[in-house]
Amino acid sequence: MREVAVVGVGMTEFGELWSDSLRTIWAKAAVAALADAGIDQVDMITVGCMSPGLFTGQEHLASLLADELGMAGVPAARVESACASGGLALRMGFAEVAAGLSDTVLVTGVEKMTDVDGADATYALGTAADQEWEGFHGITFPGLYAMLARAHMQRFGTTVEQLAAVAVKNHANGLLNPHAQYHLKLTIDDVLNSTMVADPLHLFDCSPVTDGAAAVVLTTVENAKKLGGKRPVVKITGSGLATDTITLANREDLTELKAVRLAAERAYAMAGRTPKDLHVVEVHDCFTIAEIMATEALGLFDPGSGAAAAADGLTGLQGRIPVNTSGGLKSKGHPVGATGVAQAAEIVTQLRGEAGQRQAEGATVGLAQNMGGSGGSSTVHIMEVAK
Amino acid sequence: MREVAVVGVGMTEFGELWSDSLRTIWAKAAVAALADAGIDQVDMITVGCMSPGLFTGQEHLASLLADELGMAGVPAARVESACASGGLALRMGFAEVAAGLSDTVLVTGVEKMTDVDGADATYALGTAADQEWEGFHGITFPGLYAMLARAHMQRFGTTVEQLAAVAVKNHANGLLNPHAQYHLKLTIDDVLNSTMVADPLHLFDCSPVTDGAAAVVLTTVENAKKLGGKRPVVKITGSGLATDTITLANREDLTELKAVRLAAERAYAMAGRTPKDLHVVEVHDCFTIAEIMATEALGLFDPGSGAAAAADGLTGLQGRIPVNTSGGLKSKGHPVGATGVAQAAEIVTQLRGEAGQRQAEGATVGLAQNMGGSGGSSTVHIMEVAK
Repeated sequence: MREVAVVGVGMTEFGELWSDSLRTIWAKAAVAALADAGIDQVDMITVGCMSPGLFTGQEHLASLLADELGMAGVPAARVESACASGGLALRMGFAEVAAGLSDTVLVTGVEKMTDVDGADATYALGTAADQEWEGFHGITFPGLYAMLARAHMQRFGTTVEQLAAVAVKNHANGLLNPHAQYHLKLTIDDVLNSTMVADPLHLFDCSPVTDGAAAVVLTTVENAKKLGGKRPVVKITGSGLATDTITLANREDLTELKAVRLAAERAYAMAGRTPKDLHVVEVHDCFTIAEIMATEALGLFDPGSGAAAAADGLTGLQGRIPVNTSGGLKSKGHPVGATGVAQAAEIVTQLRGEAGQRQAEGATVGLAQNMGGSGGSSTVHIMEVAK
Repeated sequence: MREVAVVGVGMTEFGELWSDSLRTIWAKAAVAALADAGIDQVDMITVGCMSPGLFTGQEHLASLLADELGMAGVPAARVESACASGGLALRMGFAEVAAGLSDTVLVTGVEKMTDVDGADATYALGTAADQEWEGFHGITFPGLYAMLARAHMQRFGTTVEQLAAVAVKNHANGLLNPHAQYHLKLTIDDVLNSTMVADPLHLFDCSPVTDGAAAVVLTTVENAKKLGGKRPVVKITGSGLATDTITLANREDLTELKAVRLAAERAYAMAGRTPKDLHVVEVHDCFTIAEIMATEALGLFDPGSGAAAAADGLTGLQGRIPVNTSGGLKSKGHPVGATGVAQAAEIVTQLRGEAGQRQAEGATVGLAQNMGGSGGSSTVHIMEVAK
């Protein structure tokens, strides 16, 4: 297997991008990543996008977007795993370069979510749950994650104040990220006084609906060393992918995100790393409870201790292990197909030491965890500065 | 890069499968392929499906289907490239095994198309065209392929009788395939007297709307030799992928399927093969004109001579190069995400010498070509009996 490096990152502003369409948003991120890499040709393009069919009435993005970039002809592929589509695009690009099928791959993620009305966006997102056993009965994602939160509170004594601490921390980080959708300074009381969406989750426990795109350029480590100039070369040393039952009803344990644990175990094994080796982590905080459960499933904290860790500041920018320095899905925004790629872009930016005010000091090993549905699928990628 | 083999194939009957849902159809094909391979565990699952969101209101198939098979936990990924989604699933599985990321991959394709009403199926399929530049103006796929046919007729003198000959041949082959949707013996006159759908394409020039699933199991050639028993080991020696402009309006030449040519060139180069080496071929005959243009783009016939070749019987079961021995999309049916995998299953069946009455005598090298939209994307895979 060939060693794979990330040589370019790019993303659009995340937010309600009314003046752009899916294809123009995507092209901006793609061009930014190619410019960052200093190249203008690739052997393949992967696109993570959850549901362009339901959000915008357009499938077949591989053809649409290669063409939009002036690269019609180039092999291209769309992948989907609900909100883990971006992480899956990274995995497919990684496999292509690792196998030797492609030398350079443009890995992208995109979602244009605001061109449908509110009810339709909720319906489109709901197709990531089991439509026969969950959606049909009227539950949507805030309700599914509220059930996970209730189970975690019941078993471990997790509190709404601890959940709120995740939102406060991520919005504090998002203030330092110019690409973030929301630049808000929040307090615990702000979160607890916000509208209740699905008890115990308040509005500020939930990530928003967002338009946006992100891109990273992969190539061999050998090529990266030629391209990189004085910047550190960032390798992808571990790639893990896993599923779990799509329905919460079939889970053995509602307090564990098993797909995240399995994907992490596979990524750690490939990289020869343990959670203790990590300096900076991006996790899939679609809801505050999701961040807490993800940090536990990744082995950053013992089961049941993730909530206290967040409240105690262990995951803050100056904490033991900074989590979601980008602001996370909470503050940066969550254009679902783009999220996994944007996470990778943040980790690369951190490992290059280019994160400015939100820099995790001295970070050389990082991890990005992306998740689909209520944990029905997950990807985990470990990245490291090449020595 | 590791050598990759196909060790199991399976598919459902293709047709209007009213008593089955997407997940049950899929599981039948998956179980059939695993049984054929003689294994009950895999390292990864890939799923080609064009638009489960628009056809059935369900995305996140990776999680849904791994779970349905009792394999929750196993890495799984859905890929989409419109009607080339199945070929793309094969490519992703190939890359996983070639890279050494997975030893055994269950590659699947599925589409459940009959649970929406007619107008919605046409809308869902239409999302494979450019929605802003084609769909918005009211054109659907029969119209797009009718324009390709008109251009071919204008340049090369192709006739409606030659188009009809493709339908007659493929339905003759389909009579010999128990999985085919339609078992009809057709004449040229039957085709020409059928309803005009989009001039010059009659009803019998068009592939149908179909439910169905197909699966193949990939592993290393080394593993395949242990598993295979007395059956020939079938290797995948070439995998090519390409795009073209999604809109016909942007094409330089409407008489060439450039994505097919580029994908074929890449696959031939990887396999070290030329068109002359092939003994049996499956192509993407969503419309009769598509088969003619695909056989030209693959280099089986010179540009402009594919129509006469079909009419002269060169692509028949006893012809110089049998094309669509399975009956093709025309007769076997076209559950869009399943088609590319079903094509691979047919080629493997032929190379194993297990195709019964539709066996292409002595076939040891075959090719499967799958296509998205009006040729906006294509995959080409070359398979060979291992010596």
